Amino acid sequence: MDGENSKPIAKEKTICQILSPPNTRDLVDSVDAFLFDCDGVIWKGDALIEGVPETLETLRSMGKKLVFVTNNSTKSRRQYAKKFNSLGISITEDEIFSSSFAAAMYLKVNSFPKDKKVYVIGEEGISEELELAGFTSLGGPEDGKKAVQLRPNFLFDHDKSVGAVVVGLDQYINYYKLQYGTLCIRENPGCLFIATNRDAVGHLTDLQEWPGAGCMVAAVCGATQREPIVVGKPSTFMMDFLLQKFNIPTSRMCMVGDRLDTDILFGQNAGCRTLLVLSGVTNMATLEDPSNYIWPEYYTSTVSDIIALLDDQ
Amino acid sequence: MDGENSKPIAKEKTICQILSPPNTRDLVDSVDAFLFDCDGVIWKGDALIEGVPETLETLRSMGKKLVFVTNNSTKSRRQYAKKFNSLGISITEDEIFSSSFAAAMYLKVNSFPKDKKVYVIGEEGISEELELAGFTSLGGPEDGKKAVQLRPNFLFDHDKSVGAVVVGLDQYINYYKLQYGTLCIRENPGCLFIATNRDAVGHLTDLQEWPGAGCMVAAVCGATQREPIVVGKPSTFMMDFLLQKFNIPTSRMCMVGDRLDTDILFGQNAGCRTLLVLSGVTNMATLEDPSNYIWPEYYTSTVSDIIALLDDQ
Repeated sequence: MDGENSKPIAKEKTICQILSPPNTRDLVDSVDAFLFDCDGVIWKGDALIEGVPETLETLRSMGKKLVFVTNNSTKSRRQYAKKFNSLGISITEDEIFSSSFAAAMYLKVNSFPKDKKVYVIGEEGISEELELAGFTSLGGPEDGKKAVQLRPNFLFDHDKSVGAVVVGLDQYINYYKLQYGTLCIRENPGCLFIATNRDAVGHLTDLQEWPGAGCMVAAVCGATQREPIVVGKPSTFMMDFLLQKFNIPTSRMCMVGDRLDTDILFGQNAGCRTLLVLSGVTNMATLEDPSNYIWPEYYTSTVSDIIALLDDQ
Repeated sequence: MDGENSKPIAKEKTICQILSPPNTRDLVDSVDAFLFDCDGVIWKGDALIEGVPETLETLRSMGKKLVFVTNNSTKSRRQYAKKFNSLGISITEDEIFSSSFAAAMYLKVNSFPKDKKVYVIGEEGISEELELAGFTSLGGPEDGKKAVQLRPNFLFDHDKSVGAVVVGLDQYINYYKLQYGTLCIRENPGCLFIATNRDAVGHLTDLQEWPGAGCMVAAVCGATQREPIVVGKPSTFMMDFLLQKFNIPTSRMCMVGDRLDTDILFGQNAGCRTLLVLSGVTNMATLEDPSNYIWPEYYTSTVSDIIALLDDQ
């Protein structure tokens, strides 16, 4: 392939550097906050990735703010804090920005009327965050075991006061929920269609990947022929909340993640520094593939490299 | 909106005529076969549309071939013939071309190896047609009640000899099937991803529409980030079989359907005459909407108009 070397990709690659002792020092010195994705960065399923607690502790001791920005909507912020603590990492709820929280905040900042209801195709995290924000939700876990019995003259009824459908990862996805959400979006005037995120797959267990929210969101798109409002990464919707809380310019934040099309794109969209870790869904082959158009500023194997490389100097 | 009248749409509209006594005579005289969609044309759910049996009988008595081309994959051709007969319409299996049959024929004409298996996300019709064509299928109805229990170190196992995943309308869609199909497509080298069709919604009951195969197909696209091979309408894959059976040029066939993006587009793609009936999912507002770009040659309320208008002369 003679033309290969003349492609702009080779040129672009030069801005994507492997993390090394000098550039790690430069990166750590020039940022005040590290934004971490969780799945594939902090843990895989329920297994902590090696060296994570020490890395977080060291960064904290250097005065860095730590924030966890996750697209996984199955848990609420409260449930996430519990998971972190059970794995021996001490953090507080307000250091967590999950897409379940983002969905509730989207409705809040857009003054979603309190007398309208929200239908959930998703898990407990979304329902809990909606409730904490003062909204009434339907569906979610309680519709997980419902089935449809099609018969002549049967009319599937839905609540006409549903003003938003929130779709996230749902292990209990079924035809009942898909019909319910579809009817609300198609028939309730002005009904919002909100996606927590569109990740194709994720490490729901440590050994393999599973269909992600992108699967359920696509199903609803397929039935309604509508496109959703996405509140999780790579949308920068959450950044307003982060900025409000930490008062740090985005140029002094570094987004650390394992996914190009969510984490790294989110970081770039928000104007942050970016670091890809290869401990999750992305490997070198994907990063270097000619079809890839998202390049992080830096890449390395795992988050613990940050400290190892600083110590190397 | 001053510019509106100068849009080409108004000009295109003139080729889409309402069915009238003279053009009905012309249409009937110039075709040898009528291809009918079923849902929204012959019936809605389990209720026959008025005047259908008499219309079919009259056309048959005029020497016209009748063919039923349906995207609904939940039934096999045998089950369709049974449904027709139970509604008082006498037809034979080989007058029916369903997308379930199309999926099996696609594998057959492409010499899908008999030692490979087919995973089905769909209903009985697909599994039955695959079996009749001599293929071994997995999934489908038998995985309808299966659930996934995520736990540490759990590995979801899948059959490495699956060489094709067929996705159609599935009222029993669940996370187990989505993970199974996704693993086959992502991990089994060369595994085919076949969609019976991509209809967004359909009249599964007479009173309302329900998510169609487009919903399940989109879910698998969302998880795998792959696009399927579509064998149902508007793909003209089935036309080869029709031509082989009837030996009639497509210009002497008329496709009668209620859907622009499947039926009418299929007819146009195949070079057939086209007639839209408004007894199903499409109404005048949709037909005339500026965003619509698919125009049938003729349109009318219901199939019985064909005979009523002939009698009118």
